[in-house]
Amino acid sequence: MRILGIDPALSITGYGVIDTSASPIRLNKNKIILLEAGVIKTQSSQPVQERLEKIYNGVVDLIKDVLPQVMVLEKLFVHYRHPTTAYLLGQARGVICLASAQAKIPLVEYSATRVKKAIVGQGLASKQQVQRMVADLLKFSRLPKYLDVTDALALAIAHSNIMKFKI
Amino acid sequence: MRILGIDPALSITGYGVIDTSASPIRLNKNKIILLEAGVIKTQSSQPVQERLEKIYNGVVDLIKDVLPQVMVLEKLFVHYRHPTTAYLLGQARGVICLASAQAKIPLVEYSATRVKKAIVGQGLASKQQVQRMVADLLKFSRLPKYLDVTDALALAIAHSNIMKFKI
Repeated sequence: MRILGIDPALSITGYGVIDTSASPIRLNKNKIILLEAGVIKTQSSQPVQERLEKIYNGVVDLIKDVLPQVMVLEKLFVHYRHPTTAYLLGQARGVICLASAQAKIPLVEYSATRVKKAIVGQGLASKQQVQRMVADLLKFSRLPKYLDVTDALALAIAHSNIMKFKI
Repeated sequence: MRILGIDPALSITGYGVIDTSASPIRLNKNKIILLEAGVIKTQSSQPVQERLEKIYNGVVDLIKDVLPQVMVLEKLFVHYRHPTTAYLLGQARGVICLASAQAKIPLVEYSATRVKKAIVGQGLASKQQVQRMVADLLKFSRLPKYLDVTDALALAIAHSNIMKFKI
């Protein structure tokens, strides 16, 4: 299955695409292949509508390029104390959800705790533990420059694990 | 000038389009003509991405139909206590900002206080006072069913007044 994980933000949106083998004849059934990963960056000096357009266009192009079968986002962080943060994040997330609806790609959402549990085995794992596990699974020689990329890949891998192991 | 005011929300997005005469030969220079007003409604039973797509398509169609020269939104309500509300609102607002960017229509934002001041003359005016003033200016025989419509029209009229009277 081809899975696109996205970690949205107005300034840096991380994304990661993995391919997982569901074939029973493969020796290593849990093989995860990294197809594509990166960030969509916008400048705070730009008007917000132009920043949203850049994020939207980036995600639309990505969908066309990699043809994911499912998109994974994180569920609302209820711990955002400041409504402004939630509001800005919501705008970025809105245009990403729109791109998924237009391309008719199913969208799934997991809480941060569920992602940690599906990757490290513990819902209370640290962000660093998740990042190391993602880097290990995908055989990165070092962590990516932007942790938004590992966060996005963590979402995609979590979905793969949840589907495979029914966790 | 043709002004489109929008009051976004995931469930009911109100919109209103007015035409204001800037011609010095008109006897009544402050004449405001109502061109179009209504709501885009979505059901809470629908997936959020489909709701966002409906809002986006509604605004894109509206822009094509009425060809506004400017779009007006309300600035972030800093009084939203609950981040979830701000987050959901942000998603709806995100797809509307995207529609404005794609159509290259300038977007202006005013705080609720500025809108009240520009319409009633007082930043601390009640919501009811603003609604009555909007209904008076546009010669409504009664208030619209959805107050989201008067809120959207208030934004458009406020922009017209701010431009005309430099208030």
